[in-house]
Amino acid sequence: MKKIAIDAMGGDKAPKAIVEGVNKAIQAFSDIEIQLYGDQEKIKNYLTPSERVTIIHTDEKINSDDEPAKAIRRKKNASMVLAARAVKEGEADAVLSAGNTGALLAAGLFVVGRIKGVDRPGLLSTLPTIDKVGFDMLDLGANAENTAAHLHQYAVLGSFYAKNVRGIANPRVGLLNNGTETTKGDPIRKETYALLDADSSLNFVGNIEARDLMNGVADVVVTDGFTGNAVLKSIEGTALSIMKQLKTSIKGGGFKAKMGALLMKSSLKDMKHSLDYSDAGGAVLFGLKAPVVKSHGSSGETSIFYTIKQIRSMLETDVVGQLIEEFSKENSNND
Amino acid sequence: MKKIAIDAMGGDKAPKAIVEGVNKAIQAFSDIEIQLYGDQEKIKNYLTPSERVTIIHTDEKINSDDEPAKAIRRKKNASMVLAARAVKEGEADAVLSAGNTGALLAAGLFVVGRIKGVDRPGLLSTLPTIDKVGFDMLDLGANAENTAAHLHQYAVLGSFYAKNVRGIANPRVGLLNNGTETTKGDPIRKETYALLDADSSLNFVGNIEARDLMNGVADVVVTDGFTGNAVLKSIEGTALSIMKQLKTSIKGGGFKAKMGALLMKSSLKDMKHSLDYSDAGGAVLFGLKAPVVKSHGSSGETSIFYTIKQIRSMLETDVVGQLIEEFSKENSNND
Repeated sequence: MKKIAIDAMGGDKAPKAIVEGVNKAIQAFSDIEIQLYGDQEKIKNYLTPSERVTIIHTDEKINSDDEPAKAIRRKKNASMVLAARAVKEGEADAVLSAGNTGALLAAGLFVVGRIKGVDRPGLLSTLPTIDKVGFDMLDLGANAENTAAHLHQYAVLGSFYAKNVRGIANPRVGLLNNGTETTKGDPIRKETYALLDADSSLNFVGNIEARDLMNGVADVVVTDGFTGNAVLKSIEGTALSIMKQLKTSIKGGGFKAKMGALLMKSSLKDMKHSLDYSDAGGAVLFGLKAPVVKSHGSSGETSIFYTIKQIRSMLETDVVGQLIEEFSKENSNND
Repeated sequence: MKKIAIDAMGGDKAPKAIVEGVNKAIQAFSDIEIQLYGDQEKIKNYLTPSERVTIIHTDEKINSDDEPAKAIRRKKNASMVLAARAVKEGEADAVLSAGNTGALLAAGLFVVGRIKGVDRPGLLSTLPTIDKVGFDMLDLGANAENTAAHLHQYAVLGSFYAKNVRGIANPRVGLLNNGTETTKGDPIRKETYALLDADSSLNFVGNIEARDLMNGVADVVVTDGFTGNAVLKSIEGTALSIMKQLKTSIKGGGFKAKMGALLMKSSLKDMKHSLDYSDAGGAVLFGLKAPVVKSHGSSGETSIFYTIKQIRSMLETDVVGQLIEEFSKENSNND
């Protein structure tokens, strides 16, 4: 049985969307047990009772504008903190929250803890490509600064994820850079290039440019947290702006445009779907002793369902256990 | 009379698109003179003769895959190099090329030269916003690495450009960061924040996120060349992927989808247009002693026309002259 601790109070649509996602997942997967942390009365309003779901009541929760590290220290009984502590204490195998990202990162680092040998866990998401295969990128912003050694670890972490969770046999690793030539980039990129190129355990395909990400040029894209965050938000912002612009134009375009949009409905839906990567689950703070997964703040029940599905895959393949083993080998090699 | 030196041989559609853009500009603006550098016979095929256009023949040109600095040093008679040299020697006031970006940056720095006091000229473009006002962002990749002092200069440079060339009275300057809170970012961002906040000549509006760029949260967006390059390419890549995805879906959607697309034609055109910023001209290597402007490699005659229009505005407002004055003041203040 896979035990997942869920912060029922995090996210814009909590607890409703969270609990309804849980209902769906409990029905779909017979091998999971869920612990729901939060306001018992509110949770009960939406929960389909099941012997595989337990509610652990708490009044306290972390708000979206709380200062992350402080919130984790001070709100010891917040739903998110209790969920993370359940993992630390072996009562659960993984934690999921749609709440304050910074606080979840802090809870991951300080409560769940890093894998020995992993210097800086990175935030990893599966992002969309035109061919719908997707790619995994990290770090998406867990860190404001990274070294080349961190980026090298991200290549290892990302490859493990792509291989185990997404079933990609020999994941192609690309280094996000300001040009594809081998000599490109700032000192960090140049140093990282050398490290990746020398590591025969990786399928390193060289430098890639942000322009080509959605064309599927790599299965794993490695970058520092500052750049990764900016790139992720640029992709999101551009996609949202385009959809908004199109909507406005259809609205102002009179009968003809509205009629056209109706006829094109499935194409427009396709387009929207190709930008939507909620099927792939949430963002994983990868490199911790257990899966710690952040679902988007605006997650509805479907996103929550897919994030639970993703966590289930991570537990099934024991990707974290394998990482621990890999890094313990590396550590002993370095001795 | 404003004299513009143009590399007729740079870009995917050269010399045809370049020369046809010149024809259009000569007709539209009676106060410009153009020097076309390149293959005289080929240029003549497209040129509408005018006493305000001169051809300076050369057989040599820089290719898109030439190593930039080397190309500039070795191909002394390349069309791009001759055009830059014309500016250096006072025969022209500005230079335009749609060729090898790196080579044009090198020609700008080493032939045209930096303004005294500007440490690292930045690549600046006007990018689209939903409300069609646009924003100016720099550095888009002239430098692989920048310091906080460079970023501070970009705020000054960008403000000058927005004010003079785009007519924005009191341009709002935003610092691209991984969150909007004042304490966000890596050490460079924190240091830059302090510098911008302390500079009363700037209308600094604080940190902004890449997600909000197209919503027009700032008129000038300041970032380092590595991040700027990644963000620009993410925006371009996402927009292109969405359009491609939509096209494929319409093609595969049968009669209904095609009919719908026909009815929605003007909405789809609007959408495409909102992503297209060729009206705003090319990318300026800003901080040099004269306008050095890069038109997109795939530029057609319309883009070339708009880039000439942009250069004309830069010359008319003497934005570079004003910058020189500004930085000479700063230098003497520092004495």
